[in-house]
Amino acid sequence: MSAKTIMEYRVPYADTDQMGVVYYANYFVYFERARNELLREHGIPYAELEEKHGVALPVVESYCRHKRPAKYDDILHISAWVDSASGPRVTIYCEVRREGALLASGHTVHACVDMATGRPARSAPKSLEPLLA
Amino acid sequence: MSAKTIMEYRVPYADTDQMGVVYYANYFVYFERARNELLREHGIPYAELEEKHGVALPVVESYCRHKRPAKYDDILHISAWVDSASGPRVTIYCEVRREGALLASGHTVHACVDMATGRPARSAPKSLEPLLA
Amino acid sequence: MSAKTIMEYRVPYADTDQMGVVYYANYFVYFERARNELLREHGIPYAELEEKHGVALPVVESYCRHKRPAKYDDILHISAWVDSASGPRVTIYCEVRREGALLASGHTVHACVDMATGRPARSAPKSLEPLLA
Amino acid sequence: MSAKTIMEYRVPYADTDQMGVVYYANYFVYFERARNELLREHGIPYAELEEKHGVALPVVESYCRHKRPAKYDDILHISAWVDSASGPRVTIYCEVRREGALLASGHTVHACVDMATGRPARSAPKSLEPLLA
Repeated sequence: MSAKTIMEYRVPYADTDQMGVVYYANYFVYFERARNELLREHGIPYAELEEKHGVALPVVESYCRHKRPAKYDDILHISAWVDSASGPRVTIYCEVRREGALLASGHTVHACVDMATGRPARSAPKSLEPLLA
Repeated sequence: MSAKTIMEYRVPYADTDQMGVVYYANYFVYFERARNELLREHGIPYAELEEKHGVALPVVESYCRHKRPAKYDDILHISAWVDSASGPRVTIYCEVRREGALLASGHTVHACVDMATGRPARSAPKSLEPLLA
Repeated sequence: MSAKTIMEYRVPYADTDQMGVVYYANYFVYFERARNELLREHGIPYAELEEKHGVALPVVESYCRHKRPAKYDDILHISAWVDSASGPRVTIYCEVRREGALLASGHTVHACVDMATGRPARSAPKSLEPLLA
Repeated sequence: MSAKTIMEYRVPYADTDQMGVVYYANYFVYFERARNELLREHGIPYAELEEKHGVALPVVESYCRHKRPAKYDDILHISAWVDSASGPRVTIYCEVRREGALLASGHTVHACVDMATGRPARSAPKSLEPLLA
């Protein structure tokens, strides 16, 4: 398992809905924020992955278990890590916590696409290897 | 299985991202749009469920399989249906199609919460029964 | 003044915030939905403007007056029209109404950009003329 | 003029559109993020304003001048400050910069609403005075 990346995020009004809690789809944006930091911390910012390596990681599957609601002005800790990549797929796990308490957890599965051909790459790109060590 | 509800939706620029396709989290907003119509067509608009029956249906689990990308200006057909409700949980299935082709499919699992007590209801509310017939 | 285009829109939970009303930034997405229909009704869908004419209309200024709040499940009527285009700028006016009552009004100012050069076009493209008649 | 509050923000994929830049409505979410920090730094977090003082500050007018596009993964500096409050209205100014360069600037005008009565307060609440010094 790769090291876990953790980032801090303050919930704006924009993320809430009329139930007074964070709207459920926004957790998937939180996951993306943490994925970005995960890649950056491992030396492969996603922008670079696209521009230098010609590889995109579109989401092919997304899942979230919503346990407790996050609220306006909460400081959240969003973490992301990789467990394994089998063949051309990468699964990134994420958790959202507030003062240690788990609010939501889930994962996204990513295809590795060669941007030149638009076709799946045969395996996770070498530049992702640091993540899988 | 309940009848399937299908609604039409035109993709705005707002829903896209720089990959030129609909950003993945937005499919969960599409699912919500279709759920709303599903409940309305069965005579129990969600607003009424909250206001008259004092029951909320917060999302406790959400899943999407992203098969093909939707794009700006696409006319999508988003469908929703219910398969069964076991105990106090309701699972709503959704699909997003463009000219018949399946772009995304998934589901959300909803708790039934008594808004007066904030506690789970013992079973799916009677007002949801038409959906489960 | 060009003919006014009016479209219908049902407010999802996603658009609301914890004040129980539509979050203010979402009115600008509503404006975009109406702009799209305005262009389409005049025979120049925006996608075509970009692809066939090589012209983009990025927003350079946006304004909204928020008079009354829209709420979850409201059916809104969003209208858009053009008053005039002076030189290379186009101003599109928008209104959001519920059962006739004005909820919000505003406008966006668009530059006309030649996508090949990335530079401002000298004037509003001919394909927009039907809008200005 | 009150002190300017500046916060840092990293642009996620979620905020971009297919033009490869931040979608224009998202600048108003950026403005909100900076307003939140402005109030917090002056000792009156907005959540507290609502809960303890019973005062809400709904947006009645919003404006943005979009000068240069922000992009995915940019680190933005979003600032907010107050110039004056005349009667029951407060205007908050905002700017979005990247490495010093101005990308967008604008403001929001807020009504001060007494949440108990739902009516406009007669003047900006005392708790806002530190902001206006």
